[in-house]
Amino acid sequence: MKNKIITLLTDFGTKDGFVGTMKGVILSINPKVELVDLTHEISPHNILEASIALRTSYHFFPRGTIHLVVVDPGVGSQRRSILVETEKYYFIGPDNGILSFALENEEIKKIIELSNKKYFLRDISNTFHGRDIFAPVAAYLARGTNIKRFGQQTKEYKKFTLLTPRIHPGGVIGKVIYVDHFGNLVTNIGAGLALKLAQKRVLIKINNRKIERINKSYADTKPGELTAVIGSNDCLEIAVNQGNAFQVLKPPADAAVEITVPQ
Amino acid sequence: MKNKIITLLTDFGTKDGFVGTMKGVILSINPKVELVDLTHEISPHNILEASIALRTSYHFFPRGTIHLVVVDPGVGSQRRSILVETEKYYFIGPDNGILSFALENEEIKKIIELSNKKYFLRDISNTFHGRDIFAPVAAYLARGTNIKRFGQQTKEYKKFTLLTPRIHPGGVIGKVIYVDHFGNLVTNIGAGLALKLAQKRVLIKINNRKIERINKSYADTKPGELTAVIGSNDCLEIAVNQGNAFQVLKPPADAAVEITVPQ
Amino acid sequence: MKNKIITLLTDFGTKDGFVGTMKGVILSINPKVELVDLTHEISPHNILEASIALRTSYHFFPRGTIHLVVVDPGVGSQRRSILVETEKYYFIGPDNGILSFALENEEIKKIIELSNKKYFLRDISNTFHGRDIFAPVAAYLARGTNIKRFGQQTKEYKKFTLLTPRIHPGGVIGKVIYVDHFGNLVTNIGAGLALKLAQKRVLIKINNRKIERINKSYADTKPGELTAVIGSNDCLEIAVNQGNAFQVLKPPADAAVEITVPQ
Repeated sequence: MKNKIITLLTDFGTKDGFVGTMKGVILSINPKVELVDLTHEISPHNILEASIALRTSYHFFPRGTIHLVVVDPGVGSQRRSILVETEKYYFIGPDNGILSFALENEEIKKIIELSNKKYFLRDISNTFHGRDIFAPVAAYLARGTNIKRFGQQTKEYKKFTLLTPRIHPGGVIGKVIYVDHFGNLVTNIGAGLALKLAQKRVLIKINNRKIERINKSYADTKPGELTAVIGSNDCLEIAVNQGNAFQVLKPPADAAVEITVPQ
Repeated sequence: MKNKIITLLTDFGTKDGFVGTMKGVILSINPKVELVDLTHEISPHNILEASIALRTSYHFFPRGTIHLVVVDPGVGSQRRSILVETEKYYFIGPDNGILSFALENEEIKKIIELSNKKYFLRDISNTFHGRDIFAPVAAYLARGTNIKRFGQQTKEYKKFTLLTPRIHPGGVIGKVIYVDHFGNLVTNIGAGLALKLAQKRVLIKINNRKIERINKSYADTKPGELTAVIGSNDCLEIAVNQGNAFQVLKPPADAAVEITVPQ
Repeated sequence: MKNKIITLLTDFGTKDGFVGTMKGVILSINPKVELVDLTHEISPHNILEASIALRTSYHFFPRGTIHLVVVDPGVGSQRRSILVETEKYYFIGPDNGILSFALENEEIKKIIELSNKKYFLRDISNTFHGRDIFAPVAAYLARGTNIKRFGQQTKEYKKFTLLTPRIHPGGVIGKVIYVDHFGNLVTNIGAGLALKLAQKRVLIKINNRKIERINKSYADTKPGELTAVIGSNDCLEIAVNQGNAFQVLKPPADAAVEITVPQ
């Protein structure tokens, strides 16, 4: 039988050994897991960014993968800890909205509020539930513990309001929701809508700059030139071929992306 | 039989492939190990920081784990290379004090000075003993090589002087010894002492700012507010709820943390 | 039978979950692989830097290792995707010169132009072939798929011109080709030539500073002092003992390194 995969997504950075600590906890309970880092470079306390990063990557993993997601500004407060079983995956983390975008696409089977201390570390701090609660629960789950044993079933989990672009007769107004490592500006305009727009003549405006079409690839424009493509997050993104659109445009937070479809 | 775990803690960063190189060396000798990164973002040459990061995380790993620790400003000089067996773990690295804080808590069984070239790479550079000496020794050890074969037993290893806070009748004077990824200021005031102080009314001064109690969690104060909690390193730390205490306070290196207990 | 190793070298950074996505794709096809990160911190789109990092580390891995190398500014253009089998290893990536330095040292057995969509993801984007083409091919290869099935054999792959130092009667003129995590300035003067020079009295000039010998180790000079050693990349490098030569010298890109051998 192949080992269970546990992915880790946090805002812990990699300089402190906090991630290593969580892995030590997991391997102490269950040495037969495959640990895969999604990212630990979520901006500190940024739940929105974490939920976007999770949405981008979680569904490429094999059925049965356990996704451990810890961006947890409310650690030590009354926020709940949850485990969600969907048709294909398990998700474990604080109930603070971090699972919003991933769960939109999943068929939820059970939501458990984590409460059974038998599956936590003995001493539970008020500052590091990733280590004390979420990591051990993931390890026991991977070892085969029935998910009902971790706590009571519940119906609710915290959701963000969806960030949908505004569609009007003359076009679409969206906004930048994320800047990736390459400086690509990821918008809230999803691939479906963007594909339709790509078939038309459009004018895209962002931060007083104009782009005159949606291209297929970065390489469809000259190096250094501003472009718009459907990117690796399955959203329309503003990019610079072989360059950094964030540095070129220096857009404000939540910058508007206006797409006009000339009649 | 489950695979042996080897953890890696270095100041190599992750941009150069040096860490990958060490992993290649290990896997060439022993493909059946589980490699876990503790951190590679120790500040270059900073042995103190490395020994704090090691102390925070090593003890969460399963019995038998091999901790490979390479922050090695003296590489190529006469500093010794050692392997330490304790009751639960193995530690391998340069004998430059890096193991000080971890070994304080461990029952040492044997210290070996690494000298048997049979277990090193054939060509030993003067710049990268992590690759040429420490990685292969860890791999052979994980493969079952008796630790006596790696060299002569020795009694000594290099230790740092302990950084203890000063306790006086009216309170405690400690200092900041580490700044973590979140900007939390980790002090040399351990959890035991901090817990006692937390039961009293106290006044904490750092860099001309005052904090009036030791809280249980970051979330006990409002977002953006300065607080003091017992943190994930098992020390008192100065933090800002959902913020970055280092950026707020801009403390000097080794900043004093004065705790007064009003009579 | 032991698991196949797949190494990953990219310019994706670690904040976006792109690397995690590739790992998910690989593990979905072949859960029995060992994934090892070489580095994901190659400067965006920098093929030269990637080819140097690959050369430094690839050959320390066990025979049969699959090296997955994705720095791919031409993604979505007509650049080919290749798989190269050498006597010891497999290399997979865009055919943009990234394999130049590694393949110089290898006996090439076959070069395949990747074209069989059966071994790609079903939907192939124009922005992320690391996920859609290279990762799945690596996973199928590790599972035992015959390399001829991935596409047609080809004779050519793209190569960089070699960056060789200029040797003249009075000495050698090289240049800085890479700056590592410690700020060491790695030159194009290889270990063989550097070893010969190290046996003579030499004068090294870089950015108006002088170094009077090639040392064996960083520790042969005082902390903070400028030095020249044969470094971990098997090239002559300019370093500062326990310091950062890049910050001290602030050399221009491609800075000249002049070595004079007094007659």
